[in-house]
Amino acid sequence: MLALPRRFAPRLRALRPYSSSTPRFPCVEAHATRESRLASSFSSSSGPEPPYARPNPTSYNVFRSKKPLPLTYHSSSLPTFDVAYETWGTLSPARDNVILLHTGLSASSHAASTSSNPTEGWWEKFIGPGKPLDTNNFFVVCTNVLGGCYGSTGPSAIDPETGVPYATHFPILSIFDMVRAQFRLLDDLGVDKLYASVGSSMGAMQSLAAGLLHPERVGKIVSISGTARSTPSSIAMRYAQRSVLMADPNWNNGFYYDAVPPHTGMKLARQIATITYRSGPEWDARFGRQMRPPPPDTPVAEPRVPALCPDFLIETYLDHQGEQFCLKYDANSLIYISKAMDLFDLTFPALQALRLPEIPLSESQSTSTIDFAPPHSTSHSKSHPPPTNPPPHLSDLAQGLTLLANTPTLVLGVQSDILFTIEQQREVVDALRMAGNDRVVYYELGGVWGHDTFLLDVLNVGGAIRGFLS
Amino acid sequence: MLALPRRFAPRLRALRPYSSSTPRFPCVEAHATRESRLASSFSSSSGPEPPYARPNPTSYNVFRSKKPLPLTYHSSSLPTFDVAYETWGTLSPARDNVILLHTGLSASSHAASTSSNPTEGWWEKFIGPGKPLDTNNFFVVCTNVLGGCYGSTGPSAIDPETGVPYATHFPILSIFDMVRAQFRLLDDLGVDKLYASVGSSMGAMQSLAAGLLHPERVGKIVSISGTARSTPSSIAMRYAQRSVLMADPNWNNGFYYDAVPPHTGMKLARQIATITYRSGPEWDARFGRQMRPPPPDTPVAEPRVPALCPDFLIETYLDHQGEQFCLKYDANSLIYISKAMDLFDLTFPALQALRLPEIPLSESQSTSTIDFAPPHSTSHSKSHPPPTNPPPHLSDLAQGLTLLANTPTLVLGVQSDILFTIEQQREVVDALRMAGNDRVVYYELGGVWGHDTFLLDVLNVGGAIRGFLS
Repeated sequence: MLALPRRFAPRLRALRPYSSSTPRFPCVEAHATRESRLASSFSSSSGPEPPYARPNPTSYNVFRSKKPLPLTYHSSSLPTFDVAYETWGTLSPARDNVILLHTGLSASSHAASTSSNPTEGWWEKFIGPGKPLDTNNFFVVCTNVLGGCYGSTGPSAIDPETGVPYATHFPILSIFDMVRAQFRLLDDLGVDKLYASVGSSMGAMQSLAAGLLHPERVGKIVSISGTARSTPSSIAMRYAQRSVLMADPNWNNGFYYDAVPPHTGMKLARQIATITYRSGPEWDARFGRQMRPPPPDTPVAEPRVPALCPDFLIETYLDHQGEQFCLKYDANSLIYISKAMDLFDLTFPALQALRLPEIPLSESQSTSTIDFAPPHSTSHSKSHPPPTNPPPHLSDLAQGLTLLANTPTLVLGVQSDILFTIEQQREVVDALRMAGNDRVVYYELGGVWGHDTFLLDVLNVGGAIRGFLS
Repeated sequence: MLALPRRFAPRLRALRPYSSSTPRFPCVEAHATRESRLASSFSSSSGPEPPYARPNPTSYNVFRSKKPLPLTYHSSSLPTFDVAYETWGTLSPARDNVILLHTGLSASSHAASTSSNPTEGWWEKFIGPGKPLDTNNFFVVCTNVLGGCYGSTGPSAIDPETGVPYATHFPILSIFDMVRAQFRLLDDLGVDKLYASVGSSMGAMQSLAAGLLHPERVGKIVSISGTARSTPSSIAMRYAQRSVLMADPNWNNGFYYDAVPPHTGMKLARQIATITYRSGPEWDARFGRQMRPPPPDTPVAEPRVPALCPDFLIETYLDHQGEQFCLKYDANSLIYISKAMDLFDLTFPALQALRLPEIPLSESQSTSTIDFAPPHSTSHSKSHPPPTNPPPHLSDLAQGLTLLANTPTLVLGVQSDILFTIEQQREVVDALRMAGNDRVVYYELGGVWGHDTFLLDVLNVGGAIRGFLS
């Protein structure tokens, strides 16, 4: 007699004939069910709406600028704009203990719980008394990014010229535009100089950009799992997300704010994104090849034929992640902000083409005659020595980062990250050191959490930040 | 004065104001345009149809079985089935020079040009006189896989019971079912024993499965960029493709054969697939951060604002790949065959649960008391020695592969492959050696082509095959 199957094996089953009934696809029906539910809530005018459609300024502060914001890619400015923000800790009398915390793509300003919003924040374990961002010492400021949908001005905000949401009339944004808006807030708060600019993922882009736009106003930079120059692979992965989203008929060229939003496109986009946030080894350990449990009403003897809808636990996980997200975030914000990430490039030629008013690019810098410091041999682990003959883009990046030559910078990357790869971390480190920065601290983390490590690994990520900031 | 931007930099441009006109999205309009074109061709009944809807049996042979095919996941059989196939070279009088070539997911039997179909095949440079599959010596047979849409029975075929296409009444398939159908063809051709079973990607799964189902009928096995057990990561990537496809309203639960097919879902799915077929380093070298050239009618002085539709060359590449594919392959075939890949698992518990009639699993094998040979220290490069204390799934896999202990096997993998990772290649090699196979040849290739290396690298992939087969 055969032994019972062991772990990872499908259950023994009596086989069923096929085509015995009309095929059903619960994963597809879920879209239609969601659509009906949302359509009826819209028509009733009192039903639930996406949270981004219900701004709640009692749970965060709003800096409201009446002064136009110049934009990187357009000649016209944003006439007015809001920046939603939250703070933790106490501003010192000298106003010299400020940490500006930058978020990833879809996060709100709610990095940690506050008295006005006690729900957990996205970096709850990193912010507070005695924590890596120690509020006994620091005054931490986190904003919802320009272009976002959690209180800051973005495509879902009302265009003052028309009285209706901007939708895709919203201007193309750059990471620099986002940082520019943040510094307007700092001006308003009377903060001349940041103790540190800290960010992970897209927040790391902003963190570097802040230092570059205002070298004299940024004391230290922390760049975790970020990049100085988006690569084709990461552009491809974000492009795939935008494509499925924009193909949703509900997207309607971005004009959906008076109708049911593109929830199906958002779910599909989030599923793709989730693949890039974690790593294979983690899923091997967590899900392996396990199947979802049978529905509770299934008779024990009922045979199981594999389904075309989610069947493996990894599939139900992706499905769940998409389902949870699809109404929590504004589709146009996702499109605009992910595009800003694609456009991010701190190499000298790219910066030069943008002609940012904050960044003076002298003629001497525009030539390739700068004598770069050779990368230190200690730039990272022995098995990955810095290039002795750097490729052109690395020299271009070093040239672009010369304004950061004197800013102490912590770079931290994760070897299992497939979105912001470890090679990109090394590139930032090499370029900074080539630009003459001898105060670059660099750590590579192992582990299986991939890009999401920055959200999860308080011990290692938090420890590196704590050490660098103190 | 600023110097002109150099490589990779956007052109200098006079900035344009935003929201000056109604936003347009050519990449979204393309879906609607394709829809209109297809809808009118369907209504005219004489217009172009997808190629899979126009079988052309003059360009390939068809083996037509009237004997039912037992299925892995169903109690009922496929009552009749076709297998489309092509051959190259000459069958020897002893019928002992046959190479069965297995395809990847979406390929047809047209691996190389023939007199009846002179267009280039998908492995044109690998098959012919003096080529790696040397038709001076070998008789090469390639089939369109069961479940496919290029002449073999799949979801788009007519169900004899209803007179209309199976659609999603088609049974769930396994890789074993596909191989079973191929051996029916071999029976029909009077081929008792294969000189070799050769395949890449999904074809490598079939290649291993063929050896396992019929150890006595398979002389040698070639497994290139395959796996013996699909991992959660690869399932996730295929799941994302199926999800976007099934969310296309045209998919209609699979019943679209008398209407416009889900071309948008297919395009989006192919874009995702393309990301998994190549590698970051190749795209870095080939596309970098270059933008698409401006449309030909753009005045030279016209400024350029980044677009939300494809703008970087990597985006236009993905767009093009999706566009080329979206009408060339049947959506249901993609869904069924990709699911069969997910289900593939040669570990002993998984095989045991399937109770395949071809594979006798004796009681002694069902216990864990088999004394595995320790993996050879030469199993692969020194930097990746085989585990001295193998994880449970590796022991399970070795136990599942015991029937291959005496089959010479070539395993070849590519270090930049993100779909069938190099770890999976090593797993196959370690398991085979643990099962007692001391005729395993293993190569790891470098290079930047990722999973697609098997289609491109005639020198290294072809050379390894040539050496192993001779």
